[in-house]
Amino acid sequence: MDNSEKFRLLQNIKSPSDLKKIDDNDIDELCFEIRQKIIETVSANGGHLASNLGAVELTVAIHKSFNAPDDTIIWDVGHQAYCHKLLTGRFDSFDTLRQEGGLSGFVRPDESDYDSFYEGHAGVSVSQAAGVAAAEKIKGSSNYTVAVIGDGSFGNGMVYEALNSPSNKGCRLIVILNDNEMSINENVGSMARYLAHVRAKPEYYRFKANAEKALNHIPAVGRYLSAFLFRIKTAVKSLIYKSSFFEDLGFRYIGPIDGHDIPTLCEAMNSAKMVNGPVLLHVNTVKGKGYEFAENSPELFHGVSKFDAATGIGSVKTDDYSHEFARRLTEFAENDKRICAVTAAMSLGTGLDAFFEKFPSRSFDVGIAEEHALTFCSGLAKKGLIPVFAVYSTFFQRCADQLIHDAALQRLKMIIAVDRAGFVGEDGETHQGLFDISVASCVPGITIYSPSDYDEISNCLYKALYKDNGVVIIRYPRGCVPDCFSGLSSDDSFEIYGDPESKFAIVTYGKLFFEAVKAQDELKKIGIEIKIIKLIRIKPVDPRVFESLKECENIYFYEECIGRAGIGEIFAEDLLKMKSECNYSHIAVDDEFVPHAPVKSLLKKYKMDSDSMIELIKKDARYE
Amino acid sequence: MDNSEKFRLLQNIKSPSDLKKIDDNDIDELCFEIRQKIIETVSANGGHLASNLGAVELTVAIHKSFNAPDDTIIWDVGHQAYCHKLLTGRFDSFDTLRQEGGLSGFVRPDESDYDSFYEGHAGVSVSQAAGVAAAEKIKGSSNYTVAVIGDGSFGNGMVYEALNSPSNKGCRLIVILNDNEMSINENVGSMARYLAHVRAKPEYYRFKANAEKALNHIPAVGRYLSAFLFRIKTAVKSLIYKSSFFEDLGFRYIGPIDGHDIPTLCEAMNSAKMVNGPVLLHVNTVKGKGYEFAENSPELFHGVSKFDAATGIGSVKTDDYSHEFARRLTEFAENDKRICAVTAAMSLGTGLDAFFEKFPSRSFDVGIAEEHALTFCSGLAKKGLIPVFAVYSTFFQRCADQLIHDAALQRLKMIIAVDRAGFVGEDGETHQGLFDISVASCVPGITIYSPSDYDEISNCLYKALYKDNGVVIIRYPRGCVPDCFSGLSSDDSFEIYGDPESKFAIVTYGKLFFEAVKAQDELKKIGIEIKIIKLIRIKPVDPRVFESLKECENIYFYEECIGRAGIGEIFAEDLLKMKSECNYSHIAVDDEFVPHAPVKSLLKKYKMDSDSMIELIKKDARYE
Repeated sequence: MDNSEKFRLLQNIKSPSDLKKIDDNDIDELCFEIRQKIIETVSANGGHLASNLGAVELTVAIHKSFNAPDDTIIWDVGHQAYCHKLLTGRFDSFDTLRQEGGLSGFVRPDESDYDSFYEGHAGVSVSQAAGVAAAEKIKGSSNYTVAVIGDGSFGNGMVYEALNSPSNKGCRLIVILNDNEMSINENVGSMARYLAHVRAKPEYYRFKANAEKALNHIPAVGRYLSAFLFRIKTAVKSLIYKSSFFEDLGFRYIGPIDGHDIPTLCEAMNSAKMVNGPVLLHVNTVKGKGYEFAENSPELFHGVSKFDAATGIGSVKTDDYSHEFARRLTEFAENDKRICAVTAAMSLGTGLDAFFEKFPSRSFDVGIAEEHALTFCSGLAKKGLIPVFAVYSTFFQRCADQLIHDAALQRLKMIIAVDRAGFVGEDGETHQGLFDISVASCVPGITIYSPSDYDEISNCLYKALYKDNGVVIIRYPRGCVPDCFSGLSSDDSFEIYGDPESKFAIVTYGKLFFEAVKAQDELKKIGIEIKIIKLIRIKPVDPRVFESLKECENIYFYEECIGRAGIGEIFAEDLLKMKSECNYSHIAVDDEFVPHAPVKSLLKKYKMDSDSMIELIKKDARYE
Repeated sequence: MDNSEKFRLLQNIKSPSDLKKIDDNDIDELCFEIRQKIIETVSANGGHLASNLGAVELTVAIHKSFNAPDDTIIWDVGHQAYCHKLLTGRFDSFDTLRQEGGLSGFVRPDESDYDSFYEGHAGVSVSQAAGVAAAEKIKGSSNYTVAVIGDGSFGNGMVYEALNSPSNKGCRLIVILNDNEMSINENVGSMARYLAHVRAKPEYYRFKANAEKALNHIPAVGRYLSAFLFRIKTAVKSLIYKSSFFEDLGFRYIGPIDGHDIPTLCEAMNSAKMVNGPVLLHVNTVKGKGYEFAENSPELFHGVSKFDAATGIGSVKTDDYSHEFARRLTEFAENDKRICAVTAAMSLGTGLDAFFEKFPSRSFDVGIAEEHALTFCSGLAKKGLIPVFAVYSTFFQRCADQLIHDAALQRLKMIIAVDRAGFVGEDGETHQGLFDISVASCVPGITIYSPSDYDEISNCLYKALYKDNGVVIIRYPRGCVPDCFSGLSSDDSFEIYGDPESKFAIVTYGKLFFEAVKAQDELKKIGIEIKIIKLIRIKPVDPRVFESLKECENIYFYEECIGRAGIGEIFAEDLLKMKSECNYSHIAVDDEFVPHAPVKSLLKKYKMDSDSMIELIKKDARYE
């Protein structure tokens, strides 16, 4: 079957207005085509599968019920927006998903007017929506603002701050809670579904608005009565299902709605539009819907590498930095009962699941709540335990103040494992791990390690556990150590490789060290001897490092992070103070956000790969 | 009356065990003495008044009911802990409150074993308590963990994350909500108070625990029944008063309790101790209780400078950086309807109250929710408004990720006014504004201004509003421009003062510029000519600045922030790259937290005052 048959309906949808023309009888087929396209593309390119398959009908209903981009649709995290992309003019380019120069795996305003914000971090959408809705109100516009957020993100504190925002009053703000694990609302009975059905009918709201209006006309007593009725209603609802949480925060609650039933969804959305104020629309969906393998194991099909669509089989890597870190931590924890592991909903990604299985009473998954996670660690540490918080670099940014105020200032011992540090590749701009060094290295008293291989992870972990005081960060990248390198581990805080007298020195740390080794080997072949200084402890840098650089004429500092406030900058200040007359090159990311592309390609683009190193040094050595 | 009469009871309390010995009939007198001591001290030294006066009985009840420091008492923010200090061995040193080398205005573990964490930021306590309680559980300890938190802090997202933490289950965790403005629970009727009284009695809990146990013994059906009864109970309660919010989060709710009635408080706390799991104890207190002036205007007596205790009259400064910023912003907003002002519960402190009064529809106070505040701004900006978020430097740290992901990455125009940047003086370690530069300057595309006087604030604001793109930060200190300086404003991005050929250059920005001018004047008198380069735009630094430094032999970079990742560091890298052979001194705070002391004294200590500048330059100039 060729594509024109396979995507008979989908291929003709260039915008939501085309969707609105589709016959109701064809909608199921359209959804089927959307799912096919998503499965086909993700199995080839990798990406987020289960969450996107779960949101197909929801997205169709949204674009049928609202009028984007006049109405602003905001996708929390953005990893459930593939269907949205397919319905907003990106069917033809969808094959380029997550490819360099192609479509992003998240939403991006520079990709489409239908994408309102760059998204990638959880719990942000409701705040953004609150701001947009407040602006619409100021401008007297009648546009709606819709935030779509999963129940996982809903545990993030910002969501609560945003729901609680006094500005929401009287705004045309609709928050759609895409509840795909029943984690918030556990016990919804048939009565609840019945009530939800009733409440979701526009007539109900018309009736209700009129009744309240009428009651308010009766002076004084009327208003009290209305408030009393509202309270009774809230109580009755909370007797049946727990929605008073949202009503307490000033949101009209509608739900729970079957998130795969488009007519009901549209009806509920139209009801929501009639409410004079903020609405929480609670929708139940099935993660992975329509693809058996994903429905059965949604956690395995959350974010995936390429896989075989027919069998659901892909490769799962466990011999990478994350798993090696977790493995060694688990070993230490066998013999030291003080060690606890903490994660913010990333036990799989960080490899901590093995630890969690082995030591459940010392394992804490606090949900997508990075701030609480770190401060919670300070509580554990206060009582003499040794908490280890493993977190992706990009999410670590979220606890900058907690790092300063709740960790370092407390002079308590804790370990933060910063995973996915450096380029992360296909997830792109919102996920690159480039800011952790800048955020952390300004904090007084913190020690930062950046091991380059697995044995160095052990060494650093040992020092963090038993030698250092205060907050210790161990930073490592996504991926694994290249196979061809072994025997280069060091137990010291830095190590010199090559001729110590060489006038050319590469200073670097972490995974880039292996690029430097490759460059060193190649340069040697053409008669250029360089030395490599590998930093393992990057804060504080061992002062002996500078002694070894005194006579150097060319110093190249390579780091896979934002250059501003990077280690290479403090290094420069120290060189200046010791009156070095070297030519200093600091190769890092310079004041820009880094879009998605394979890591290899990014290393090349930012001139951090071995070829770029060789080229630069050859030029300085005037090698023709 | 001498002190031995005036503080007959209080002076003999060296620890909570002494408090426990006080006769019940004497408790009122003790509370009176505590209030006297607090009013006397704060009127002389400045500090937090209203919140401390409101928490006297609550604190007494806590130390009577719990067994600190075995039981961990955690004071959110710490600005309501004066009574706690007086009851834990610090009566004799209380006169030194907020004085250099004296007692801190907040809690500090290095001051007393009864202080569990360094506190100063809002909403942190519940996460800390969750961690401590989880550790106690792991260790099998029967100690209680108590967090005391005000209703203002309760809007912070971290509190929600912490209440929501799955680890709380089965923990001896008691969160005391000190509700002093009725802002959360507005309409508590007499029925609620009655129920609260009933529920607060230990007998009730004994009965309840037994009933539940009995029901659970009936297999299957019993357990369902118990759950059903619990649901009915929740519904009934929520009919009367809104507590289901907390019960939804897994907390047993007790309250509201009269927070000035010690026997009732103690009874409620003893009830809370009997609950097998986390408890939310809701206490109503009156801010400023017992001091008429503070009761009538609690907002004016929140944080105060010294005042006359008999009349309540102190000086209120409105001719400072904060008010000048707000004044000029209000002027711009007269003619530009796009300008909105946003604050996180700091409209008074930042001077924005005038703006709020004049343009209520464009003014947003989101409560103590800095993260939401900034992301909310991006929503306003998305629709073409120009949001201006005014925030203290120390709280600005809390939105590092929002700055990266929700502001800069969005390429939207917004302005952040970073107030209280630099040393803040008596509030100490948790409040110093030293990290904003490090946190912000690594973020791509951001512009940062640091005006040194009021006209420069206008100039920078104008550029931010009408010339620059993206996120613009305007950073200014606490306090005011010294009177003796005028005519030194500049409209450029930097300015040179003094002999351009001088071999000595001070490079600085913000308020320190005036120290440099003083030093320049003094040095001139003894024949040493220096030049001052005042940076106004500190990111990016104007490249012309470096040209003017080419021939300089001694460059002194002064900045009132943490040196690591400060502007002086990137400056050094640029000097190194241009092969400067200067002697470079970077004077900033070096990898440490800065305790409380008057700003003047801190400038001296960190060698940033004019005298230290003179001394250093005289030495380098070999002046005898």
